[in-house]
Formats: sequence, structure tokens, C-alpha cells
Amino acid sequence: MEPLALEDLIVAFAKLPGIGRKTAQRLALYVVKRPREEAELLAKALIAAKDQIEHCATCYNFTQKGEPLCEVCRDTRRDQQFLCVVAEASDVLAFEMSQFYSGAYHVLGGVLSPQDGVLPEDLHIDTLVERVRQQGVQEVMLALNANAEGDATAHFIAQQLMPLTKVSRLARGLPVGADLDLADSVTLSLAFAGRSSL
Amino acid sequence: MEPLALEDLIVAFAKLPGIGRKTAQRLALYVVKRPREEAELLAKALIAAKDQIEHCATCYNFTQKGEPLCEVCRDTRRDQQFLCVVAEASDVLAFEMSQFYSGAYHVLGGVLSPQDGVLPEDLHIDTLVERVRQQGVQEVMLALNANAEGDATAHFIAQQLMPLTKVSRLARGLPVGADLDLADSVTLSLAFAGRSSL
Repeated sequence: MEPLALEDLIVAFAKLPGIGRKTAQRLALYVVKRPREEAELLAKALIAAKDQIEHCATCYNFTQKGEPLCEVCRDTRRDQQFLCVVAEASDVLAFEMSQFYSGAYHVLGGVLSPQDGVLPEDLHIDTLVERVRQQGVQEVMLALNANAEGDATAHFIAQQLMPLTKVSRLARGLPVGADLDLADSVTLSLAFAGRSSL
Repeated sequence: MEPLALEDLIVAFAKLPGIGRKTAQRLALYVVKRPREEAELLAKALIAAKDQIEHCATCYNFTQKGEPLCEVCRDTRRDQQFLCVVAEASDVLAFEMSQFYSGAYHVLGGVLSPQDGVLPEDLHIDTLVERVRQQGVQEVMLALNANAEGDATAHFIAQQLMPLTKVSRLARGLPVGADLDLADSVTLSLAFAGRSSL
């Protein structure tokens, strides 16, 4: 019985992950109560995020439009001989927020999952091997989710990189089955310190 | 270290009530991953909600722009002789979703709160009294939050309406201190059935 515009906004909010109908309603009612500028700010940020975020030509991390390389790859103070391999660009944020990591990244764009049709050629594995060969990378740390697909992907990549460089993975300080981007900074830094050679 | 457009979106999401930095990040990353159309849909719904939602000339419930009266006030099947008085238009949604209520509403626009400077003249109390006088309303049920301010507001309104009509309030089936719009439909319908005369 609510106005169409309100119902539309509730439905749009409820499409976001982890936002149920009740929370969506609460968010929509909040927007209706607040000044128009606040709704505009969020609306513009949504469009800008879609239009201005691209992927780094080297590591596939997020980068602002017009910057072919991401901030990490452009930063000469970062150790470009140490690569942290993650499944998604969002995993980079988890490392960057914890502020203990000073190397570079390589974003795979997913993990191997034959039943979902994700094969090695669908991930940025070839470019990782190429990068390790050309840049004289000294260590590649595999930071994938601690589950079957993450392990299988790590194993597959390790097989290809071990002849070329040192390969390590995050210590099993991560709770088994947990998503990497949900880990807190302390857990993540402990897992980093205890990383093991493959 | 994330791109500016991503950071802007995270900050914009984090301004919504109940959305912390971590959740905002998760929502922003989701938006970046999904097709542009989805971001557009939410962006348009935000602006439309601000531009197209107005308040009903009779009861102050939400109404779509161009409709001076809300859906409840326009609906001839609704009992316009029975008024449910609520603090906010969002409380109307809680009643409408539970689907047991067939009367009309009157939205006060808040509750009395002298320390926050909310006085009787700041609420739609005069128009409520006028409406009861003119429409021959048979019962006014006060459905305000079960806390000190809600009780004080109910008492103030009851004093003015009792010479004119029957005045009731929701049964104390509501957990004391809880917000009305968080109540589930069953609790709300029990509270409705057990409403008491004032």
C-alpha cells in the first residue's frame, strides 16, 4: 500500500547482498526522511563506481579510470618482487586495510571450479607466470580462501611457479571454510607471519 | 589505497543507518562487480523516492506525487471512522504489512519531546482533533512506541479526544522499550486484539 516510488526503492535496496526486505524498508524510509542531497550523493557514487573503476593492466586490482596501473603497482616503495596472489580485487582491500603488507598483488579473478566451468584459462594465471618470469619475482604468496577450491587453485598455481621462484601460502591461522575478506586484520597478519613454503 | 570512486561509494553506503564500514565495503564491491543497470536502478530509485513521495493531505501518510490523498484515504473499503494514530509514516507500513487492519490512519510526524523542542504544535494533533470532530470518528486507537515519550504523547492526545470519541491504545503485547516498526506481524496483531479503552 506504500507509494510506488517507495516500493521501488525498497526492492532496489533488497537486491544488495545481505539486505533483507525489512532492512531495505528501513534504509528506504531513512532516505525519504533525509535531505535530497544525501540521496543524490549515493546515487552519483553508484554510477561513478561503475563508470570510473577499471582493472590494473599489471595485477588486475581495481584502478581509477585513466590510470592503467593501480596505486600499488605505481608505488615505487612497494616491493614489486613479492607478489600476493588473491582471488578477487576485494581481497586486496582486506590486505591494504591491515597495513602490514608492503609487496604487490596479482588478482586471479576467481578460483578454479570445474563444476562451475571456471578453468585455468578463465583466470589470470598465464599473466602471473609471465610476470614472475619477466620481473624476477622472489616470492609468490598464495592468499586464497581456505576451502577446497582455494586449495586446488593454490596447488595448480604452485605447480607452475615452483620451478621459477619461491612459493608460499598463508598460514592456516584462517578459520577453515571462512572467506578471506571477512578476516580481521590481526588474524590476517598472524597468517602472514606464519606463511609456509610450498 | 582503493580507487577514489570506490572509496566514495563506501562512504556513501556507510552513511545509511545500521551500515558500518565493513558492510558498506561489501555492498560497494558488489555494485562494482554487477552490471551497470543494477547500479542505475538503485540510483534512479533513490532520486525518485525523494522527488515522488509526498504526504497525504488528510492523514500525513506517504503518498505518490500528484495524489493529494494516500492509498488508504482513497480506499472506500477502509473504515474511515476508525483511526490508528502513529508517530511516523513508516509505522503505517508496519500495520499495512500485517494486513489485519482495515481502518484509516493519522500520522503525527513524531512524538512530544519537550527536551528536544518537540511541542504539541509541532505535531499533527490539531488536525487529528479537527478530523475526529468533522468525520464523526467512532474510535481512535493510539499506536505509539511503548516508551515514556510515546506514553506522554498518548496521554496528551487522549485528554483532548476523550470528550469526542472512544480512545484506545495498543495492548502492552509490545515488548516495553521496543520500536513499533520493529514488531513482527503476530505481535502487532495480538496487541491490536487486546487494545484497551482509555
